[in-house]
Amino acid sequence: MVIMRNVVLIGFMGTGKTEAGRLLARRLGWSFIDTDALIEAREGRTIAEIFRDCGEPYFRDVEARATAEAARAGRAVIATGGGAVLREENRARLRASGWIVSLVAEPEVLLARVGAGVERPLLAGEPEANLRRLLSEREPLYRDADLVLDVSRRGVEDVVNRVVEFLAGYEEASVPVRLGSRSYAFHVGDGNLALLGWHLRGIGAGRGVALLTHPRLRTMMGNALAANLREWGFDPAVVTVPAGERSKGLRTASRVYDALVAHRCDRGAALVCLGGGVIGDLGGFVAATYMRGIALVHAPTTLLAQVDSSIGGKTAVNHPRAKNLIGAFYQPRLVAADIAALRSLPAREVRSGLAEIIKAAVIADADLFQYLEQHLDRILALEREILVEAIRRAAAIKAQVVEEDEFESHRRQVLNYGHTIGHAIEVATGYGRYAHGEAIAIGMHLEAVLAARMGLIGDAVVARQEALLARAGLPTRPEGVASRAVMEAMALDKKAREGRIRFALPLRLGEVAIRDDVPPPLVQEVLAGSPESH
Amino acid sequence: MVIMRNVVLIGFMGTGKTEAGRLLARRLGWSFIDTDALIEAREGRTIAEIFRDCGEPYFRDVEARATAEAARAGRAVIATGGGAVLREENRARLRASGWIVSLVAEPEVLLARVGAGVERPLLAGEPEANLRRLLSEREPLYRDADLVLDVSRRGVEDVVNRVVEFLAGYEEASVPVRLGSRSYAFHVGDGNLALLGWHLRGIGAGRGVALLTHPRLRTMMGNALAANLREWGFDPAVVTVPAGERSKGLRTASRVYDALVAHRCDRGAALVCLGGGVIGDLGGFVAATYMRGIALVHAPTTLLAQVDSSIGGKTAVNHPRAKNLIGAFYQPRLVAADIAALRSLPAREVRSGLAEIIKAAVIADADLFQYLEQHLDRILALEREILVEAIRRAAAIKAQVVEEDEFESHRRQVLNYGHTIGHAIEVATGYGRYAHGEAIAIGMHLEAVLAARMGLIGDAVVARQEALLARAGLPTRPEGVASRAVMEAMALDKKAREGRIRFALPLRLGEVAIRDDVPPPLVQEVLAGSPESH
Repeated sequence: MVIMRNVVLIGFMGTGKTEAGRLLARRLGWSFIDTDALIEAREGRTIAEIFRDCGEPYFRDVEARATAEAARAGRAVIATGGGAVLREENRARLRASGWIVSLVAEPEVLLARVGAGVERPLLAGEPEANLRRLLSEREPLYRDADLVLDVSRRGVEDVVNRVVEFLAGYEEASVPVRLGSRSYAFHVGDGNLALLGWHLRGIGAGRGVALLTHPRLRTMMGNALAANLREWGFDPAVVTVPAGERSKGLRTASRVYDALVAHRCDRGAALVCLGGGVIGDLGGFVAATYMRGIALVHAPTTLLAQVDSSIGGKTAVNHPRAKNLIGAFYQPRLVAADIAALRSLPAREVRSGLAEIIKAAVIADADLFQYLEQHLDRILALEREILVEAIRRAAAIKAQVVEEDEFESHRRQVLNYGHTIGHAIEVATGYGRYAHGEAIAIGMHLEAVLAARMGLIGDAVVARQEALLARAGLPTRPEGVASRAVMEAMALDKKAREGRIRFALPLRLGEVAIRDDVPPPLVQEVLAGSPESH
Repeated sequence: MVIMRNVVLIGFMGTGKTEAGRLLARRLGWSFIDTDALIEAREGRTIAEIFRDCGEPYFRDVEARATAEAARAGRAVIATGGGAVLREENRARLRASGWIVSLVAEPEVLLARVGAGVERPLLAGEPEANLRRLLSEREPLYRDADLVLDVSRRGVEDVVNRVVEFLAGYEEASVPVRLGSRSYAFHVGDGNLALLGWHLRGIGAGRGVALLTHPRLRTMMGNALAANLREWGFDPAVVTVPAGERSKGLRTASRVYDALVAHRCDRGAALVCLGGGVIGDLGGFVAATYMRGIALVHAPTTLLAQVDSSIGGKTAVNHPRAKNLIGAFYQPRLVAADIAALRSLPAREVRSGLAEIIKAAVIADADLFQYLEQHLDRILALEREILVEAIRRAAAIKAQVVEEDEFESHRRQVLNYGHTIGHAIEVATGYGRYAHGEAIAIGMHLEAVLAARMGLIGDAVVARQEALLARAGLPTRPEGVASRAVMEAMALDKKAREGRIRFALPLRLGEVAIRDDVPPPLVQEVLAGSPESH
């Protein structure tokens, strides 16, 4: 499951639902709703007074309304009254609203906690006997939960940790990136940045955290995330750099170092990159080189960064004469991709990211290609489950290729499908005309045509890929780009070795091969587009 | 053996001694001496004319004088006449001068090569019969060599490679640094930079090479080394940065990137760092980050860099607020330490390097400590074999510690013996008063005193170390340095964790332990020096 659902705490009086719920909500950055408090506020009197004045049936009606109201909230931790689970109507609403977490405890513990029971009308008279009776009546209802936690010998901190662990397990789809001592996990979910503090604890990050982002993202998400991390015991500093490629240079890197020094970040510190490719590349480079390497965490906010650049450890800044010239291979310790961040992106940027998902499918996973053909419209609509699944599968492909060739010796070149021509088009158009994914889409189409001309694939594959790219709203042909300029850019590319241009060319859907024997006249011809209608 | 001796080529006429010798000399950057050419120049006529006019006995006398003259040269490849080995006097001189490399070939090959023998008086008349007779007479003499190479089916390039391989095996002492796929070799010798091109070929470096050095070193060694590398088929660019710590910053790194771009260095390029710690740290950082990492080669020219900083992969530049703040762990592909470079160093700098050798002995090798006690004066006199052996053993210790803990998690901290106090003294004195090794020597003495006060070692160990440091001309007490300033610097050091100062303290000669439980008042007392005369 991938939808970030509410957390509903059920359990007998005295199990600490309110205290645990309050802390959990703070940790997640969610709102906290206590249905008893809601009832008291609505009614203007205490629960005990309602019981005394109007009796239990009246209270249960009021409680049902409060429960319904609470269940409608989003991003909320809901603590219910001990008897809220008695009505099937309430149970159904709560179950639809979120994960049911039941706190249970031994009767002796509860008795000690509820004490004299002044405010507990149901226990009045013979507290122990009443409590035991109620407990045994309700036990099946308290057992009917997604997670049952015995709090008899468990502190509130421990309860919260267990709930978050549960959420991380069920609310995120994860992909392991297996690189020996440099292994890490890629998580994707909807709203799962709420779990980042938990994950940071998991990797043993120290208190000092720097959150690198852009000013706009800081307002949208960064400040909230920082507040959230503070609740987890971290000491985050938010560092912003202007959006755009110009921030990807040594000068900006130097300013980020300054900020880390000013924040007294030591070797145990973590740098969280909240943003797209520029933030990830820049922050990755800084993390790789600050004190010879601190923990790097990617929280990619663009689809392109989520499925591609956040995995694999390529970090870099630009040199005035060449993009990504200064950098390092440096793996993150953790990647947390939250699709909630995609909802504020322009549609064009989402489509651009889709190009890399389609690329992943073509190079390594024919099933994914089919999945994309089936579900493209729902992905474009950012439908949670479908989108998370597509991202997870694309990330798994990237992870696998990186695992086979961490330092880009050979195998990793398959990821360059569409990029030999695509990157050259970006260079030839000065990076201004096409978004990266658009250029890659054109590159994929032309390289597929090239493969067909060389007899590697049939025209049907070319057509199928072209149709999917077109449905994704991606271009497949360079408009008014001089093919000579593209040829020149390819020859100068750092992927070229001793003047030979390398291509990753499809052999069928799901498989590509590296070739450096493509005749330049053929490339020229395909670029010029003349006999495409052969 | 560690002395870079000449190479003497012996062999029959037609074995290609002149051609091979000439190429070998170019590759090594040595002079080439052809004794036959020397004779002709001295006599003002050809060998054939001398034979004709004065007979063989006269020629042999002239040849003996020319051989004696050639044998006196240094850094020379000497090609001898085919009959030079006939006289014992010549053989003894040549053997004393260098390695005897004998080129042999099958008679048929030689006959084909010497052709009609117009210029070969000894073959006149019946060339084949004469040749076979001479060969069989001289065979034992040609076999009496350090290296015998059959050139019957071997081109000159191959001959030269075999000779250089032989030299690398016998003229350098080597230490392997075993780090899996990041393993490399440390070589130390006298004049062995002549072999650098050979080693670069060995690691598969591409044509593009950048030689990073200081202007003074460029004149002294860099230009010659570049010319040498050119002979090996490389395309070296010499890049200079001003000497001194101020070059160790992002600004200078940026200028080095520019130079690499201007020289069109690609991913296959190598960066050779010819210099001391600043060049190694700066160049190491640039190599680690240019195109996400190119081959790094250290050619350390100070004793400190040879025994310490060139091994282990720590690279860094300074941040205005902290030294070495920006850096990476990035292992070199090769280290070539040439003690010839040390001969132009001020004595103080050599003594400073000695501090790290003594440190290595104290932390891990009691035998080396004894070796230093025995041979210190000869090391200070830069006596080749002794010095090379001391460097090799110190390098082996550094290599072993690095192998156990590449990324400085724990074990590597033993290398910080003397550095906790030593580094703090450098900080407290603004890096101006003491050379690094001097500060470390003081640190070693005071930390040994600390260990003695804690009952870890006896006073005899302290005294032995102090005596050796003193003989090396190193200070052991901070003169007029406020102990409070040193205490403060220690607390701020990046090696301190959560306010606790870490020390590597000796348990005996050859073993240290990491301790973070040293009582600060004790440190204060030792620094103040009061009860040192206990």
